[in-house]
Amino acid sequence: MNARRVIIDVDVGTDDAVAILLFLEADKLGEIKIEAFICTKGNASLDNVCRNLVRLLEYADRTDIPVFRGSFHQILPLQNTHSVFHGNDGFGDLKYQEEPDLNIIKKDIASVGMQNIVSKNPGEISLICLGPLTNAAITMRMFDDFSRNLKDMYIMGGNIHGVGNTTQSAEFNFFIDPEAASIVFDCAQCPIYLLPWETCKSSTITFKWRYEVLGKMGGKLWKLIDSAEKSVYGEPTKQEIWMPCDAFLALSFLHPQKAVVKSRKEHVSIELHGRKTRGQAVLDHLSQNQANAVLIEEVNNTLMKEILMRACQNV
Amino acid sequence: MNARRVIIDVDVGTDDAVAILLFLEADKLGEIKIEAFICTKGNASLDNVCRNLVRLLEYADRTDIPVFRGSFHQILPLQNTHSVFHGNDGFGDLKYQEEPDLNIIKKDIASVGMQNIVSKNPGEISLICLGPLTNAAITMRMFDDFSRNLKDMYIMGGNIHGVGNTTQSAEFNFFIDPEAASIVFDCAQCPIYLLPWETCKSSTITFKWRYEVLGKMGGKLWKLIDSAEKSVYGEPTKQEIWMPCDAFLALSFLHPQKAVVKSRKEHVSIELHGRKTRGQAVLDHLSQNQANAVLIEEVNNTLMKEILMRACQNV
Amino acid sequence: MNARRVIIDVDVGTDDAVAILLFLEADKLGEIKIEAFICTKGNASLDNVCRNLVRLLEYADRTDIPVFRGSFHQILPLQNTHSVFHGNDGFGDLKYQEEPDLNIIKKDIASVGMQNIVSKNPGEISLICLGPLTNAAITMRMFDDFSRNLKDMYIMGGNIHGVGNTTQSAEFNFFIDPEAASIVFDCAQCPIYLLPWETCKSSTITFKWRYEVLGKMGGKLWKLIDSAEKSVYGEPTKQEIWMPCDAFLALSFLHPQKAVVKSRKEHVSIELHGRKTRGQAVLDHLSQNQANAVLIEEVNNTLMKEILMRACQNV
Amino acid sequence: MNARRVIIDVDVGTDDAVAILLFLEADKLGEIKIEAFICTKGNASLDNVCRNLVRLLEYADRTDIPVFRGSFHQILPLQNTHSVFHGNDGFGDLKYQEEPDLNIIKKDIASVGMQNIVSKNPGEISLICLGPLTNAAITMRMFDDFSRNLKDMYIMGGNIHGVGNTTQSAEFNFFIDPEAASIVFDCAQCPIYLLPWETCKSSTITFKWRYEVLGKMGGKLWKLIDSAEKSVYGEPTKQEIWMPCDAFLALSFLHPQKAVVKSRKEHVSIELHGRKTRGQAVLDHLSQNQANAVLIEEVNNTLMKEILMRACQNV
Ligand SMILES: [Ca+2]
Ligand SMILES: [Ca+2]
Ligand SMILES: [Ca+2]
Ligand SMILES: [Ca+2]
Repeated sequence: MNARRVIIDVDVGTDDAVAILLFLEADKLGEIKIEAFICTKGNASLDNVCRNLVRLLEYADRTDIPVFRGSFHQILPLQNTHSVFHGNDGFGDLKYQEEPDLNIIKKDIASVGMQNIVSKNPGEISLICLGPLTNAAITMRMFDDFSRNLKDMYIMGGNIHGVGNTTQSAEFNFFIDPEAASIVFDCAQCPIYLLPWETCKSSTITFKWRYEVLGKMGGKLWKLIDSAEKSVYGEPTKQEIWMPCDAFLALSFLHPQKAVVKSRKEHVSIELHGRKTRGQAVLDHLSQNQANAVLIEEVNNTLMKEILMRACQNV
Repeated sequence: MNARRVIIDVDVGTDDAVAILLFLEADKLGEIKIEAFICTKGNASLDNVCRNLVRLLEYADRTDIPVFRGSFHQILPLQNTHSVFHGNDGFGDLKYQEEPDLNIIKKDIASVGMQNIVSKNPGEISLICLGPLTNAAITMRMFDDFSRNLKDMYIMGGNIHGVGNTTQSAEFNFFIDPEAASIVFDCAQCPIYLLPWETCKSSTITFKWRYEVLGKMGGKLWKLIDSAEKSVYGEPTKQEIWMPCDAFLALSFLHPQKAVVKSRKEHVSIELHGRKTRGQAVLDHLSQNQANAVLIEEVNNTLMKEILMRACQNV
Repeated sequence: MNARRVIIDVDVGTDDAVAILLFLEADKLGEIKIEAFICTKGNASLDNVCRNLVRLLEYADRTDIPVFRGSFHQILPLQNTHSVFHGNDGFGDLKYQEEPDLNIIKKDIASVGMQNIVSKNPGEISLICLGPLTNAAITMRMFDDFSRNLKDMYIMGGNIHGVGNTTQSAEFNFFIDPEAASIVFDCAQCPIYLLPWETCKSSTITFKWRYEVLGKMGGKLWKLIDSAEKSVYGEPTKQEIWMPCDAFLALSFLHPQKAVVKSRKEHVSIELHGRKTRGQAVLDHLSQNQANAVLIEEVNNTLMKEILMRACQNV
Repeated sequence: MNARRVIIDVDVGTDDAVAILLFLEADKLGEIKIEAFICTKGNASLDNVCRNLVRLLEYADRTDIPVFRGSFHQILPLQNTHSVFHGNDGFGDLKYQEEPDLNIIKKDIASVGMQNIVSKNPGEISLICLGPLTNAAITMRMFDDFSRNLKDMYIMGGNIHGVGNTTQSAEFNFFIDPEAASIVFDCAQCPIYLLPWETCKSSTITFKWRYEVLGKMGGKLWKLIDSAEKSVYGEPTKQEIWMPCDAFLALSFLHPQKAVVKSRKEHVSIELHGRKTRGQAVLDHLSQNQANAVLIEEVNNTLMKEILMRACQNV
């Protein structure tokens, strides 16, 4: 089988980093070919996302993969912010001896870069979205054929039962740019696979395992990620369950048959106007609209651990 | 033990009727004392709700219980409507030989009637709400001490996972008057027990049992309700599961120990401003507010059947 | 000609006080008969509005006029507040030797009190609204025939060009209870005369005249009001133009022929859901709806001064 | 003086055509240099706007000016539509013998085309917006320095007193893409000149003059525009006043000293969330924000007629 081709949109972020590690290993194994990375504001400012990503690629010796810089802002100025959950720099505020070389970043803006790749390879490229959907949405607005030429989209974000993690009822990626999420779900002309917050919350992987088993392993890249996560989360006893959201999505993409234990088709749209529910994913419980997304409801946590152990050694 | 004292707010409605039957039996058994009925627009116009309720009381020979007429309209004119799900008259559009005698309805408006009873019996009265919360809310706005003097409120309505039955994400009673629901949950100064739509959806009682077993039983009142429901739902095969929502709430009130299998405390508020989520109940998933309601998540369906069989014979 | 009969709904407030002075003089002259005062939360808490009003009536020796207490809260809890523009007590925080005797306030709640008067005198009573429309709206919701039995309503509030004084685009009375304003304009079944904020802003009466001419005059009631206003506004040079909003409405009601220089019919509704425009009055610039209000656009300022000078001496 | 350099964003539209005629004459006179035209969906579909614009340029013999195609869609799918006020094709649905040659349209998408011109000429280019602000906004979101490099923006759209022409309170260009308007006014880092709907409504130019004087004149381009307008408006007696909105903006840009009779600085933002006011321009009447726009309140109608007569002959 040919390697599946992907563009990966990230807002690194420690869980993005774990996902990137899984993708880099799959690329090394020839399972996928990473055509480009896209930097999106979210877990950090755009500048820091670029810095965090390029550093990860330098540690992995993969600065050959094209990197594009996305929009400096979310679509609307209402949420003109990024999270500091993963530290001020989005990656644990570690001290480094050298700055990453940002000159490797392409001159073309992300939308143009993505459109060039996708329009030349219609039906071939999967777009993996690990952060707010700003760049995916803007590219869809600029280029009418962009989403039609995608093979599919894999998205981490939103919710299925109205369970929020940033507001009462909104998940971070969708809350940060609800208009972008709305554009994607209302207008995408390709299949969408969505891994929502509730699926992450159902993780059974303990921080104890994460620290005592996975934390003891690994090559250069994993050790960097491990340090960043430890800086973010501190002592393992503080939090019971480890929820590497983006890594769950990576697993679901890389091993769809074995990783996705339960899924269902639904029509998903985004509430933009509520005072309490802005950014909430709304399912069509009246079944008046055709399904536009496959919701990944349950992921194989045992497989997750196996793949993580292998990848942490391997990359 | 003394009989528990209740005011029952209804928008009859065939499932209201089943609940009323359960309450009338409990009153007959001395378990409760029904202090008043309140008529609320919802499953039918206010006039038809009055007509349906008084007819039920006539069939049950209980026109001694005070009946008050509520507001002609929901708080805002936006949803100035009632449902026709239960027929144009809200009760299966049956033909009758005689009109009910509406002169038994009290001259005082519902808010004044409720306040008079509750203020004279502070801490004694449970308010049972089987329809939109219009009258409960208006009374709370008019009389500052009303909800403080209530023992508690039992409410059928809303949702816990954003599952709607009238819009994608809103349940009928809350959607019809979201402002009223918002006033109740934001301002009530008494305990609230909420039985949401998802709990009704988890019913395991089949229409087959409803028609073939329960449908064969009963006295004069049950036969009337049975005819109305059959007129609304038609042939049993059409719908698999019978969901008498208001009756589930009645059961939960009458037999709290045995009927409520699973419940939890949550902070509930109502989205008023969303385009897709207006009327949705929003849970505080960030736990920033103190719980204001006990959500009844699972009801004992076996007990429901037992109580129904007894009540249908008994009243 | 018979005296025109009025119920006056106030949230006293110094400009309410000036209006009340005009109304009391007109009552003394036999031009009007004040059937009742209604106390509404707005410029002060409900308690302070009651206190301020009763004190004014005591100073004017008119405690024979029935006073009713309105709702403790606006319809929605969102704006659960009152203004402190006119001082913490809504009346300049003056020191008094005696407390007003609040026992004169009727036991019936405002809605019941108003409905009793209006239903017994259909087509006879004008309702004058000088504060938020909370009580007018709740009474309309409780009693279906209330507004149909009114002769007309005179309202100070809202805007015609989106000029706000409390938010960018909302006027105080409408912003404090937008749902109430929405109910009144969507559902009232009697003529409405609306004097909006922009009309007050077009006042040409200077503080200089107010202080140096009007401030030198008057009997006991006016001296009290004068002190309260001076406590609120301080030195005359601070503000150029005096805008006694409620008094402009009083003048428009008392002398419709001479006072109202310019008016036009419009369809008015209230925005409830905007983030920037909640509480704004919206005119139907597409003329798709029938007019529901007469907008008073310009008032005779010379007449205002004449009437004020006479009333200040006279009451 | 050097020619002022402009990019003109159009949604042709008969009033866009009149404006284009004025701009083409000014370019011919050496007063301005048109660097590019941008096609925006609005008065017609994107395809028809392209067709209408290229045809106008062919009639004027100016296909040397670069033309860029903008986004196929407004930012949000909520208003996924264009107007048919100016005919199904946005230009009077005339019959033509030949199709315009769309091959002259540049391959680069509008955002990239604009950014290339503007970034190479910082501080030199005025962006003239005669339609919805979709492309201006998307370009601002994609390229952080775009608006900073503009000399200024001239925009026809919105309102100052809440007077709508498409909804009760929203003007067409802003209503079609309120999110785009919001991005522009919240984020632009250059001066903005706004000519709102109320200024167009204050036009004193009659259709009688338009038809009987201006209609008798002109060269090839004007005769085409004249035919299209007559097809849209029909007989002159039907409408009293002619309101060529975009042409008023063109005049204000071309002759700022003489054309703009009255203007003022204001802070303008856009309501996105209202049910009645979505798309309304909101002025900061509390003066809490710094002004971000010059509102053109009154235009010299006599000058308009003079310039029109000259341009119609001249181009
Ligand atoms: Ca991420
Ligand atoms: Ca019911
Ligand atoms: Ca007032
Ligand atoms: Ca235009």
